[in-house]
Amino acid sequence: MNQSDVNQANKIPYVGTLGAGPLNAITDVAGVQVGHCTLSQGAIQTGVTVIRAHGHSHFTHKVPAAAVVINGFGKSVGLMQLEELGVFETPIALTNTFSVPAVIQGQLGQAISTHPEIGRTWPTVNPLVFECNDGYLNDIQAFAVKPEHYLQAHDAVGNPLEQGAVGAGRGMSCFELKGGIGSASRLVSIDQRSYTVGALVLANFGKREQFTLCGQPIGNTRVMNPVEPEKGSIIMILATDAPLDARQLRRLATRSSVGLARTGSTLGHGSGDVALAFSTAYTIPQERSAKMPAIAMLHEQKMDGLFQAVAESIEQAILSALWHAESVTGRDGHLRQALLEVYPDLKA
Amino acid sequence: MNQSDVNQANKIPYVGTLGAGPLNAITDVAGVQVGHCTLSQGAIQTGVTVIRAHGHSHFTHKVPAAAVVINGFGKSVGLMQLEELGVFETPIALTNTFSVPAVIQGQLGQAISTHPEIGRTWPTVNPLVFECNDGYLNDIQAFAVKPEHYLQAHDAVGNPLEQGAVGAGRGMSCFELKGGIGSASRLVSIDQRSYTVGALVLANFGKREQFTLCGQPIGNTRVMNPVEPEKGSIIMILATDAPLDARQLRRLATRSSVGLARTGSTLGHGSGDVALAFSTAYTIPQERSAKMPAIAMLHEQKMDGLFQAVAESIEQAILSALWHAESVTGRDGHLRQALLEVYPDLKA
Amino acid sequence: MNQSDVNQANKIPYVGTLGAGPLNAITDVAGVQVGHCTLSQGAIQTGVTVIRAHGHSHFTHKVPAAAVVINGFGKSVGLMQLEELGVFETPIALTNTFSVPAVIQGQLGQAISTHPEIGRTWPTVNPLVFECNDGYLNDIQAFAVKPEHYLQAHDAVGNPLEQGAVGAGRGMSCFELKGGIGSASRLVSIDQRSYTVGALVLANFGKREQFTLCGQPIGNTRVMNPVEPEKGSIIMILATDAPLDARQLRRLATRSSVGLARTGSTLGHGSGDVALAFSTAYTIPQERSAKMPAIAMLHEQKMDGLFQAVAESIEQAILSALWHAESVTGRDGHLRQALLEVYPDLKA
Amino acid sequence: MNQSDVNQANKIPYVGTLGAGPLNAITDVAGVQVGHCTLSQGAIQTGVTVIRAHGHSHFTHKVPAAAVVINGFGKSVGLMQLEELGVFETPIALTNTFSVPAVIQGQLGQAISTHPEIGRTWPTVNPLVFECNDGYLNDIQAFAVKPEHYLQAHDAVGNPLEQGAVGAGRGMSCFELKGGIGSASRLVSIDQRSYTVGALVLANFGKREQFTLCGQPIGNTRVMNPVEPEKGSIIMILATDAPLDARQLRRLATRSSVGLARTGSTLGHGSGDVALAFSTAYTIPQERSAKMPAIAMLHEQKMDGLFQAVAESIEQAILSALWHAESVTGRDGHLRQALLEVYPDLKA
Repeated sequence: MNQSDVNQANKIPYVGTLGAGPLNAITDVAGVQVGHCTLSQGAIQTGVTVIRAHGHSHFTHKVPAAAVVINGFGKSVGLMQLEELGVFETPIALTNTFSVPAVIQGQLGQAISTHPEIGRTWPTVNPLVFECNDGYLNDIQAFAVKPEHYLQAHDAVGNPLEQGAVGAGRGMSCFELKGGIGSASRLVSIDQRSYTVGALVLANFGKREQFTLCGQPIGNTRVMNPVEPEKGSIIMILATDAPLDARQLRRLATRSSVGLARTGSTLGHGSGDVALAFSTAYTIPQERSAKMPAIAMLHEQKMDGLFQAVAESIEQAILSALWHAESVTGRDGHLRQALLEVYPDLKA
Repeated sequence: MNQSDVNQANKIPYVGTLGAGPLNAITDVAGVQVGHCTLSQGAIQTGVTVIRAHGHSHFTHKVPAAAVVINGFGKSVGLMQLEELGVFETPIALTNTFSVPAVIQGQLGQAISTHPEIGRTWPTVNPLVFECNDGYLNDIQAFAVKPEHYLQAHDAVGNPLEQGAVGAGRGMSCFELKGGIGSASRLVSIDQRSYTVGALVLANFGKREQFTLCGQPIGNTRVMNPVEPEKGSIIMILATDAPLDARQLRRLATRSSVGLARTGSTLGHGSGDVALAFSTAYTIPQERSAKMPAIAMLHEQKMDGLFQAVAESIEQAILSALWHAESVTGRDGHLRQALLEVYPDLKA
Repeated sequence: MNQSDVNQANKIPYVGTLGAGPLNAITDVAGVQVGHCTLSQGAIQTGVTVIRAHGHSHFTHKVPAAAVVINGFGKSVGLMQLEELGVFETPIALTNTFSVPAVIQGQLGQAISTHPEIGRTWPTVNPLVFECNDGYLNDIQAFAVKPEHYLQAHDAVGNPLEQGAVGAGRGMSCFELKGGIGSASRLVSIDQRSYTVGALVLANFGKREQFTLCGQPIGNTRVMNPVEPEKGSIIMILATDAPLDARQLRRLATRSSVGLARTGSTLGHGSGDVALAFSTAYTIPQERSAKMPAIAMLHEQKMDGLFQAVAESIEQAILSALWHAESVTGRDGHLRQALLEVYPDLKA
Repeated sequence: MNQSDVNQANKIPYVGTLGAGPLNAITDVAGVQVGHCTLSQGAIQTGVTVIRAHGHSHFTHKVPAAAVVINGFGKSVGLMQLEELGVFETPIALTNTFSVPAVIQGQLGQAISTHPEIGRTWPTVNPLVFECNDGYLNDIQAFAVKPEHYLQAHDAVGNPLEQGAVGAGRGMSCFELKGGIGSASRLVSIDQRSYTVGALVLANFGKREQFTLCGQPIGNTRVMNPVEPEKGSIIMILATDAPLDARQLRRLATRSSVGLARTGSTLGHGSGDVALAFSTAYTIPQERSAKMPAIAMLHEQKMDGLFQAVAESIEQAILSALWHAESVTGRDGHLRQALLEVYPDLKA
């Protein structure tokens, strides 16, 4: 898919100079699949999104990964062990802040059901749940998400990727507009081989006056309100088929702040900005008797293209969330309008 | 309480050369209180332990703190935000690995109940839950701990401190003996003022052949089994009334590995070894309109005594857990014997 | 100085919406002063820049600070102790990569000369030297910088701030144009008080096709060369008179990547991107007998304005380096042209 | 070499239960070699020690490695880039605190001499220099070490390993006794293959009353002096032939604190305690066109034996430094006595 096709397809301004994959989404990385469970009824506007790195058990086929905490005002779980061991071992789950325990419970139940040895002859499992606070639209105190909603999102994995006000993105806000799930991808040619970088974001950050579209300040016609701190967050998931180890994946994840900054964020105090990068090029076995993979990692000097791909795909994914998200009315009649309703001139 | 009184009272070998507080426990730090909820019925041998830093709401009176991940094979939650902001804002909870979501749920419910503004006009709250895997004695897959057990442990805060096979320590093992909750304190004189360092551990680590008592190898008469990796963990909570900021508290928490190493641990691969240190000398207000405290922190060159106190109190607290813990039989008839049953010669 | 005055004065596009200090430079932070020593003769195009936080000995009046390594491909020295203790204790020095040892030697000599107790009855001193590789223009293998050049730069501290191809910036390149020293400042009003954030950068990064001016891609008319990795770097020094501790200053330094990203950088593999933030609101005494300051730090929720100020002042400082730097011909006839020679349309 | 042979050879109490390599030294790791340059004349009691990981250029054959800063009161250089890239690219150098710039200069000169492309068509080189403060015995303000002393130490690489008051260890103190260079090794059998862990320490830490020999408090007959903070440090270098990546090597380096703690250290405020671990199982090429190695790393669950080896070899290496170091009189008649002079009963 070339740049003009992409623009044709979804009217979203195209970020950067690298080409995109066929779907311009994280699912362009072979094996990566996404599922949503969306809860939308009155004051309940929330959900769960699940990302799988491959079709096998993530516990027996652990995924090399690294996370970077850009601003740690957040409640994501699972990063301590991921940092120590350089892998994750469950599907990735996204949800709202107060639904983290329900989703952990869903992940634990699923892992034990698949592997009854967990917590018996095998070690315990490390849940991996990211969150943003959707409390403006969603009655977050209602604890509407239950463990089964994680399972429902997991069952939906493999469906065509939906973006916008779906799954964990249902109640999220971005630049005081309707935010949510966005995705994009970029292709990088290294040594005559094409690698894909895919991004999926849960965009829930930013004040209107910061919003910057492809370098143009869109939001700053409004007077800034310095008293009200930002309460949002963004979760940025990066997948690639390039062979990278955990240290290199941390370097990749670090570059997510570049794309984020270019949309106008200044990494606000109250914004839990967290990035995770994983590679699908190999997996790590659970069993100590299993053979370890022997992988030639990418030479460090070849990573600049991947860094550019991260910057472009993150910025693009944030725009994609804004372009896809419909207007939503939730708790106490709170309304977040869709971007194109507020700025109709942005329609292609 | 001097050294000989302590020995008199509990027959536990006294570690080091600094004096202890009146209780030789974390509760010697003024304001710090502990409560347990213990579940003990057949295959269910587990529980929850709660530590409070002071008598006010921890959300409105945030506690300066820092955590150190010595070995990150663990599932504790809340450390990302604690690292970013240098405070915690709920009571500290300890439990088993699979009960983390239930205890988070308990903390969320309690925080919202106390402060209905949380997740509405106020930000969300950051649960702080530490865990070890008690799956040898406890049917961890049964998810026996419920949110109300957190509340019950919290209700018990202020009771005289119990140690051993109680609360979160009910099902824990240490050096393949019965482990659990242990505590100790040390006094440090700085500039004619006495400061207290208190330690509370959830001891669930170590292979028998590693066990070292005051420098003496006790366990290594057994042949070591190099194939079976350690699956344990230890949580080490440190409290002090010395005025320290988060950076200095991180330095304190780092020294917990000294006490741990001296009991024989080599920080095994599968052992989630995590330390948290907090100060009771001041609190940080939630509201931006509130006055910030103006505290003269301790001069860096005066910290060596505190470092020694950490090393001694952590080693002492681990011994205290072993000395207090009764034998427990749990899941599938698994038995962990009390230390003094296995080594009766250690009785004073 | 308001925005239009600034534009009037130096024709540099004004970044962002916050106002600047009177000089739009790091020296707007009271007490902060800068000096340069410039070496410019044939193949030798290099130098030293020194920044002082205050007028006292930095060893006896240590400066609260934190550094953030955004991309660690660099050879700066002094960050390990700065991270541990949260202070620096010499003036800040900038130079080229291979001149780091000469400048350390200059700092050591100066510190011992001022305080003969250092390394005797007092501890040793922690040199703080940042560097970028100016090897394209400068014969870096000639080791032209000597310890006395550090002293000469130090002697020049207090002169009106020069920017561009001066001091450590003499041989630096930025977006394959002439780079070097740039500076800017922004004012933030918090609780009816005005705080200043000042930035000084040593800009030596970026490929032409990345260069982005106030959101507009300037450089990307050229075909990108994906094979040649970036070899540059940027050092970003932030000063503020806001009362912040080391942890808070780390949060400030983290936001420097926002300004950097907006100029087009994707934090290239070979770019040593390092930021340091310090506060002039208080100092920490060397002597253990001295009284420690009792400072009410800024409430965390009031930091968003400072974060915006960092983003704006870093972006502005990079532009300022490009606007000020004259064309320089150095080693082997290598030429870096001034920005306005290559893009004359950018002249106001 | 079995345990009894080791004891026979050098009378040093044997630490732990694992066997040692033939030399009980870091040079048991195939390819690892050490050289010293010792300066000993009156008030000048100092030197340089160099460790090579293999016989090739370390710049073209980069060595996988990780460093852990246990206590950052130190001035070692090179760790920032090592952390980012997971390799080092010069021989490892040890010296006194104020000789760091001279040794950097020596490393730069050597690297450029070997590879004139460095700083021209190739990137610059990252010097790696560790230090301790030998100012009690050595006139550290004299800057006696020159760049050529680094080269002399490098020329001595390959000689039989000397320990004690030699090289960088010449002026070092340990527990207020004569310290310096010590080394040890341990063998670990994993999957029917024997791996070696070698340790070399520059021991310059500790107060007498802390000194603990194989669990026995030796030094604490003296009254402790709480006013005088520790000013020492220890550098701990670990080599192994096990195939580990940088993340795993960081886990190895972390365990060095276990061995250190068991000798009595409480990681004093003023002690720069730094550990580096490297693997000789493979190297990383400089040139982007070179083939990257495809290595099956050790399964994480097999690392416990290596962790034990680190703990034992570090403790043993510290003892070895004390056993080998002769009494030295230096600056102002300061004397550090050899261990066995002060404690003759420790002679086997």
